[in-house]
Amino acid sequence: MSTALDKMFRPRSVALVGASDRSPWSRLVHANFSRIGFEGNVHLVNRRGADAHGQSAVKSCRDLPEVPDLAYIFVPNEGVAEAVEDTSAAGIRNAMILTSGYAETGTDGDSAQVALVQRARDAGLRVLGPNSLGFINYADRIPVSPTPLMHDWLSGPVAIVSQSGATTQVIASFAQQQGIGLSYAIATGNEADVSSADVLDFLADEPQTRVIAMFAETINDPPAFRQAAQRARANGKPVIVLKVGRSELASKLAQAHTGSVTGDDRIFDAVCRQDGIIRVGSIEELVTTAGLFAQGGPIDGGVAIVSISGGACEIMADVAVDVGLSLPQFAPETVEKLQGCIASYGGTLNPMDITGAAVVDPSLFETVLRIVSDDPAIGVAACVYDLPRGETDYLHEAALRHIGNGLRAGRRPGFLVNQALRPVTAASRGLMEDLGIPAVIGGVDLAVRAFAAAERWSRTTASALAKPMTADTPSERPSSEREALDYLEKKGVRIPPRAFALTAGEAVAAWRAMGSPVVLKVASPAILHKSDIGGVRLNLNDEAAIVTAFGEIIAAAKSAYPGAPIEGCLVLPMREPGLEMFVGTAQSAWGPVIAAGLGGVWIEALADTSLRLLPITDADALAMLSELRGARVLDGYRGQTAADRDALAAAIRTIGDAALALGSDLVSLEVNPLRARGADVEALDALAIWGDP
Amino acid sequence: MSTALDKMFRPRSVALVGASDRSPWSRLVHANFSRIGFEGNVHLVNRRGADAHGQSAVKSCRDLPEVPDLAYIFVPNEGVAEAVEDTSAAGIRNAMILTSGYAETGTDGDSAQVALVQRARDAGLRVLGPNSLGFINYADRIPVSPTPLMHDWLSGPVAIVSQSGATTQVIASFAQQQGIGLSYAIATGNEADVSSADVLDFLADEPQTRVIAMFAETINDPPAFRQAAQRARANGKPVIVLKVGRSELASKLAQAHTGSVTGDDRIFDAVCRQDGIIRVGSIEELVTTAGLFAQGGPIDGGVAIVSISGGACEIMADVAVDVGLSLPQFAPETVEKLQGCIASYGGTLNPMDITGAAVVDPSLFETVLRIVSDDPAIGVAACVYDLPRGETDYLHEAALRHIGNGLRAGRRPGFLVNQALRPVTAASRGLMEDLGIPAVIGGVDLAVRAFAAAERWSRTTASALAKPMTADTPSERPSSEREALDYLEKKGVRIPPRAFALTAGEAVAAWRAMGSPVVLKVASPAILHKSDIGGVRLNLNDEAAIVTAFGEIIAAAKSAYPGAPIEGCLVLPMREPGLEMFVGTAQSAWGPVIAAGLGGVWIEALADTSLRLLPITDADALAMLSELRGARVLDGYRGQTAADRDALAAAIRTIGDAALALGSDLVSLEVNPLRARGADVEALDALAIWGDP
Repeated sequence: MSTALDKMFRPRSVALVGASDRSPWSRLVHANFSRIGFEGNVHLVNRRGADAHGQSAVKSCRDLPEVPDLAYIFVPNEGVAEAVEDTSAAGIRNAMILTSGYAETGTDGDSAQVALVQRARDAGLRVLGPNSLGFINYADRIPVSPTPLMHDWLSGPVAIVSQSGATTQVIASFAQQQGIGLSYAIATGNEADVSSADVLDFLADEPQTRVIAMFAETINDPPAFRQAAQRARANGKPVIVLKVGRSELASKLAQAHTGSVTGDDRIFDAVCRQDGIIRVGSIEELVTTAGLFAQGGPIDGGVAIVSISGGACEIMADVAVDVGLSLPQFAPETVEKLQGCIASYGGTLNPMDITGAAVVDPSLFETVLRIVSDDPAIGVAACVYDLPRGETDYLHEAALRHIGNGLRAGRRPGFLVNQALRPVTAASRGLMEDLGIPAVIGGVDLAVRAFAAAERWSRTTASALAKPMTADTPSERPSSEREALDYLEKKGVRIPPRAFALTAGEAVAAWRAMGSPVVLKVASPAILHKSDIGGVRLNLNDEAAIVTAFGEIIAAAKSAYPGAPIEGCLVLPMREPGLEMFVGTAQSAWGPVIAAGLGGVWIEALADTSLRLLPITDADALAMLSELRGARVLDGYRGQTAADRDALAAAIRTIGDAALALGSDLVSLEVNPLRARGADVEALDALAIWGDP
Repeated sequence: MSTALDKMFRPRSVALVGASDRSPWSRLVHANFSRIGFEGNVHLVNRRGADAHGQSAVKSCRDLPEVPDLAYIFVPNEGVAEAVEDTSAAGIRNAMILTSGYAETGTDGDSAQVALVQRARDAGLRVLGPNSLGFINYADRIPVSPTPLMHDWLSGPVAIVSQSGATTQVIASFAQQQGIGLSYAIATGNEADVSSADVLDFLADEPQTRVIAMFAETINDPPAFRQAAQRARANGKPVIVLKVGRSELASKLAQAHTGSVTGDDRIFDAVCRQDGIIRVGSIEELVTTAGLFAQGGPIDGGVAIVSISGGACEIMADVAVDVGLSLPQFAPETVEKLQGCIASYGGTLNPMDITGAAVVDPSLFETVLRIVSDDPAIGVAACVYDLPRGETDYLHEAALRHIGNGLRAGRRPGFLVNQALRPVTAASRGLMEDLGIPAVIGGVDLAVRAFAAAERWSRTTASALAKPMTADTPSERPSSEREALDYLEKKGVRIPPRAFALTAGEAVAAWRAMGSPVVLKVASPAILHKSDIGGVRLNLNDEAAIVTAFGEIIAAAKSAYPGAPIEGCLVLPMREPGLEMFVGTAQSAWGPVIAAGLGGVWIEALADTSLRLLPITDADALAMLSELRGARVLDGYRGQTAADRDALAAAIRTIGDAALALGSDLVSLEVNPLRARGADVEALDALAIWGDP
């Protein structure tokens, strides 16, 4: 697949199908080729074979002197089918379709799109679009797009992928404004055939691209997307995504303790966490974060911040706490060196305010940056100052030169941080070169967010291991509570001793054998919510009570579910109070997911669950626990024994593995409660729900 | 005070004290006057009376031909006291001090600053600073500052106030980059005399200023700040604040259920909510929000968004939900009108994607904007497009002209919204004028945040009433639980019937009289945490149990507090379980505050409290309840009766009023639990803690 897309995005010849002086799309596309100076051949095709844009045209792709690598089709909607036929008949293997009027318009358009793609596939043609504004290949200077090109043309390592053509253009334009060079800007449109995942997969290997910035409305092929993202990560390429659709979150959270815990957006968050995808909230953050990686690569350690502005230090400290950026305090040797060179009223904290003393003596910038860059905990040095947009003066020039020297001196990447967001103009870039400023990012708010993302990405990617994504071939199908508990026990989850009683007499015998108060629960594969119908009785500790309870339970079950198979009762020992967790799995478009949260009273008050895609590691499960808003409850409250987080995490991971092993017909496996007292973690109830095989 | 500051910030003559060719500060300050062309007199003063900057100087302010309105002092630290003496001896009443080396350097500097201010006050001199980078008055072209001035000089309605001089400059520079005109940029420095609150008070009346943007590190005079903010609001001027120090939040939250619930930053949040101050998180957000008010004023209704980019619509919808911006759906008449003019595949939702059809027919922008601006629920129309930074082409020009027409047509303010943040250059402003674009804001993320803040400010300010800030003169001093409960009952809080028992026999008699199980609690003003020492016994319902419990309680109390006055026991009826709330007041630099949260198990798990400054209204108390993360617990869980929010809010407000009436010697009044079952809301325990009178 990558090979095919290589020809699509790096074509040496292109046919423009629908070329016409009267079509604004045709004019715009052709003008871009003229302006940019494409080195390959651009062929014009239209039904009448009429000249266009001062160049001759042919009636059919079959009349062309060569087989182009790519056809860009922008004929009117009713002519698309014929154009696709003609294109494939000419032996062309890659087409992009600009024409709209397909799935984006509703049901009829959707049918037309399905038919179109089927025809293309049958003819061996790969299609980007329809409704695609095409792409710009900055590295090889190939603009197959009607998007009017901006004045700047900065090529570099950042690739942009977006379903929305308008948004592709906005992101590209903002990146150029910020002085960030691009490899590709690709608009995937309706993704009828080639999806964002396919493009991501192509970029994971594409040599000009080191950073991938995406805007996504929906992810059309979740498994392929995950695989491509994992490949990009394995190749050391960060994937940064602005995905819309968060606002469905509120309504989905409301169902958080049912089988559909799994609002799509929260699952996408879990995917990002597990696959090292950096999720951002705005176009500005997307581009700033990409720019950080483009200029600085991975970060091995925390960030040292140096500024003459106390205000900037304070803003950055606040945002750092908000977004979890590590600002390590300096080592004693570093502090000692700093004290040797700064005035008494400057501090040695990080962020470090070197005060207006640096206005009087700008070499202080260099001295301090050299010292902090050598601190063992520091992975990147950041100096807050403003990079001029135009010409500068002698005062700033001296400061900037010393800052450049200081930032370049360390073993670590160094960034100048603009205080507020400002363009990095051609003049700015000239100054950077003249004065030796290695990299620039800003303003302080976006910079801290980007540093936090880069630090986290670098740390987790270094330790990431590819995990198997396939389930065992399922060999069993536990259904009742009894079977579900037996199955979980076999898989390694601790379950209390229990007995199955067909009669009240057997229940009494089980109680005697257990030697402690017991719980009776109705046993019936038909009854999922036993408590609601009076099917559970707690804390029974004498023969008469057990006999009465057994009879009442069976009667209540028969009354609530007439005709259902009522097998008897499960007998379990009554447990002391402990922390109650909820653990449940569900299927999703992304594959099986697992949710864990505080059970009992907590879940109703907080709707507080953590999500992950399965499988998970013990470390994933530990992270899930720490993400809970009510996590402090785990550490004991009101004198209750704390839950052992390792034991709890192991149980959660084991439940996840057990669910995965049951295959994709399992709709949900739920343990509620999973009871924890210290390291004593037991599943007290379980429920398996199956779909049609 | 306002009059005095009027002369400080609008001086007709200025003395520069410390003027010297050798001083970089002097050169910078003087150069600004030369560049900007101040219409008043600039006098130079230095100890030697030596000429400077090609202008003659005098040795003393007393030698000047007039008494200047303002002296700007930038002599070395050791000469400041003498300069202040000289200044006041000459009859000058306003001084600004640039010289540093005071409170910002630690204890010695702090003492020097106190002495300096005392001297100035004794001499009738008001002082801005020390360590102040002065101010720029844009409206009257008066630059009393060493800050190098930017190329642009856009005067307008936005005043900037900041303690940090460097940050003042960054904010001003960013505002100018975004095309936002300024009235003042004032750096208050160490605020030894004139505080940010004083400056805010001045700006509340200053006619050139319609919007106030602040950067604050600490608020030095909280009551004055509140009064000034309330005055600004009453005058229709929004106050927008970027305050640092949020990162102390985490540690302060950890103490959230003690008397010191009241981390400063959370109190400041409460102040902002109550006084209509808009709190923002970044410099970009500060300036964008100020720019919105500067161009559009208050907003009476929701926002209508129109775009040709589906991506932009989606991003804005997501952020709108995050920040609570109202995007009303259009009325049926509006939808009908829209359907008459847009293609079948365009929607009529808000945000409204008018699709690429507007590229072909740009008049669609105008038509649609006119229609949505007339919708009754809409207070502002926003059209997403990019305002060019430089020259534009015919395609964009046609679109921009139609957008301008549409935005100007409605009864409501209209904004062009840039998709990502970009400068609004002189060329951009020229285009706006030529093409009739009334206002611009961007990018989409910041715009939505600003619209949300403006919508909320406009709505709450319209209904805001000044509240009394003074307490009654306290006439009593309840101390023990018994007195505190009696006091609360008198103030209108419901308390269960209760009896005070000196002996076990009296306790038994009280039980008989109540006719229900009872609770015994040790009565002693010395014992604050009764449960911890075995001083509380629940659910007693026979004579023997009461007698035994009474004896055990008294014994336990005597053993834990030898020698303390043990008065006997309080007897209260045992109540059924209900929702338990915690309500507590505390003193703060901002005045008394009240915190309310879920009590019982919840408070330990969630540390989930809402804060307000006292006094509060019932509406404030209702808002406090809805802000709780666990608010859904109020509506009943596990079949428990829901709490009546109105009744609960009334009780919280009454407790607040009761605390306020006790005056400022009261450290804390705590009710824990406040028990709610439906509209049945009772205080079951109370604690008053007093400081020294």
